[in-house]
Amino acid sequence: MSQHDSVRAVQWEDNHLVLLDQRKLPHAEHYVHLYNAEDTAEAIRNMVVRGAPAIGIAAAYGVLMTARRCYKQYPDQWRERLMPELAVLATARPTAINLNWALQRMQKIIDTPSENPAASLLNEAEQIHREDIAANHHMGQLGSAFIQHKTDIITHCNTGSLATGGYGTALGVIRSAYAQGKIKHVYVDETRPWWQGSRLTAWELVRDGIPVKLMAEGAAAHLMKQGNVSWVIVGSDRIAANGDVANKIGTYSLAVNARFHGVKFMVVAPTSTVDMNTKRGEQIPIEERSPDEVLTVNGQRIAAPQAHAWNPAFDITPARLVDILVTEKGVVLRPDADKIAELMAKP
Amino acid sequence: MSQHDSVRAVQWEDNHLVLLDQRKLPHAEHYVHLYNAEDTAEAIRNMVVRGAPAIGIAAAYGVLMTARRCYKQYPDQWRERLMPELAVLATARPTAINLNWALQRMQKIIDTPSENPAASLLNEAEQIHREDIAANHHMGQLGSAFIQHKTDIITHCNTGSLATGGYGTALGVIRSAYAQGKIKHVYVDETRPWWQGSRLTAWELVRDGIPVKLMAEGAAAHLMKQGNVSWVIVGSDRIAANGDVANKIGTYSLAVNARFHGVKFMVVAPTSTVDMNTKRGEQIPIEERSPDEVLTVNGQRIAAPQAHAWNPAFDITPARLVDILVTEKGVVLRPDADKIAELMAKP
Repeated sequence: MSQHDSVRAVQWEDNHLVLLDQRKLPHAEHYVHLYNAEDTAEAIRNMVVRGAPAIGIAAAYGVLMTARRCYKQYPDQWRERLMPELAVLATARPTAINLNWALQRMQKIIDTPSENPAASLLNEAEQIHREDIAANHHMGQLGSAFIQHKTDIITHCNTGSLATGGYGTALGVIRSAYAQGKIKHVYVDETRPWWQGSRLTAWELVRDGIPVKLMAEGAAAHLMKQGNVSWVIVGSDRIAANGDVANKIGTYSLAVNARFHGVKFMVVAPTSTVDMNTKRGEQIPIEERSPDEVLTVNGQRIAAPQAHAWNPAFDITPARLVDILVTEKGVVLRPDADKIAELMAKP
Repeated sequence: MSQHDSVRAVQWEDNHLVLLDQRKLPHAEHYVHLYNAEDTAEAIRNMVVRGAPAIGIAAAYGVLMTARRCYKQYPDQWRERLMPELAVLATARPTAINLNWALQRMQKIIDTPSENPAASLLNEAEQIHREDIAANHHMGQLGSAFIQHKTDIITHCNTGSLATGGYGTALGVIRSAYAQGKIKHVYVDETRPWWQGSRLTAWELVRDGIPVKLMAEGAAAHLMKQGNVSWVIVGSDRIAANGDVANKIGTYSLAVNARFHGVKFMVVAPTSTVDMNTKRGEQIPIEERSPDEVLTVNGQRIAAPQAHAWNPAFDITPARLVDILVTEKGVVLRPDADKIAELMAKP
């Protein structure tokens, strides 16, 4: 692993999937061992693993593990037996498209006539995994080139090694820019209600020696006003064909504030995040999670008894608020439908 | 007390000050009994009592209690003996100006030649207290008149009976509009890091039968985009002579988003919140509180070990983002220096 990059959330070890349990961070570094698609789907749903690219990689290994079992039990009917389990994986979380993208790649291998699918599926899952890490390093270089002088950066949620195969998307750009001496401070929204900023991004950055300052979401606009922040850098769970960006709840508010303050807004995501079948952002399904995530912390009730909560997990940032989209296929300035189509047509 | 208004945070009982301990809400309704200015200052610093108007009222009673003791012990030197304790009160929290305003009103009584100051100081403190409640009811009527049709409202922090002598500023307008059938839902930012929304506003509204939905700060922009919110209504800790508004961290982000979405932004505050000696918002001191408020919840560490936090308690919303300022002396549309001067010149 490269400099300032020491964490791996998804690993394939001894023929099974090992996930760093992100619900337990930063207090415990606990690993969960998984042996089939159903348990992998459950781990995705419960956020043992989260982050759009990491979910896709985990799902690919989930397909592999259950396909192997199906083939062993029902060598003549393994494809039919496998289908229901793939459906469970596909619906584990609705907003991130990388999950579907990875399942489609695995499906293509499944559909290819073969005696025993184990080797080719393993190869494909590992390929998805390797490609993701390589994409992140490439995007890190592409994105950090836009950071011109030593500056403060704001980021949101976790887009690092914990959210991907490794290195990270937005956090990969930040890692790369930090290594080049271009970053003074990384300000991280604590990212309520799941605390991805406080629990995950801060953990990852502290561990890798990158200075991090947490803040309440409400403080970001106040920080931008002070004039030392030149970039907000975030990831994405799905990008529509017109360039609209679904990402963790709170991203859209940052984008509006960035535009208001003349701060640039960069989205970093592999092209597996782009969903050409979704024309506009409004068509992206927004997962609503349990109100308990807002009303309680660590099982302790914070909010007044009988109070209700609204807990959308994602929001949509319209393309017109995005200054730069960084993908592994290249950079798009002020994305729109034509530019996205051109990007996706690249080999 | 009127409809939908059953809480009192500051009470004068049996010749001493009784504060509802807001650190313990919503889990326990615990009252703190105070007998002097020093302990009152400590209660303000520790946020046993918070909210600019409530702080002012508590401070007035604090002056009264210590003045009585000084007079009893040093009938010829009570004013001199009192001064250091007043200084402690004055610096208990830096941003809210109502504290200084209340101390100045008490100082005027102290400066008036008198045999025994007890009766006149008690009268003044109770007058400050009564006037605040009356102002809130009046502002409730003035502000709610601007809410035209049944709508969703967003509010931030706590501006209710817990933050004032009673009824509330922004929450007073919301109480009034709700009683008039003009409000569908009140959406409340949970208000990190001190959870005033989750712990206090939700508690107050549930208790008074007003339907409340909590949300993470990051969700407010996403909600505004959906088009059912027509007003953001907030209070203030200090308003500069040009109409710039200091309020709980997160307010400014809401104001920027409100303007972006065509949602109206209303500030509700008594004229005791206006500081004519502060020309512009940038001159208002912003209290920075302990990073622990961001890093821990209920004494449990949330954030990664060694992570730092930045914890400004307030931010400044420029006057140009304020559509309506509601005070007990009347309403100012699109406030600026001239309009504020005119308002303050009213009897």
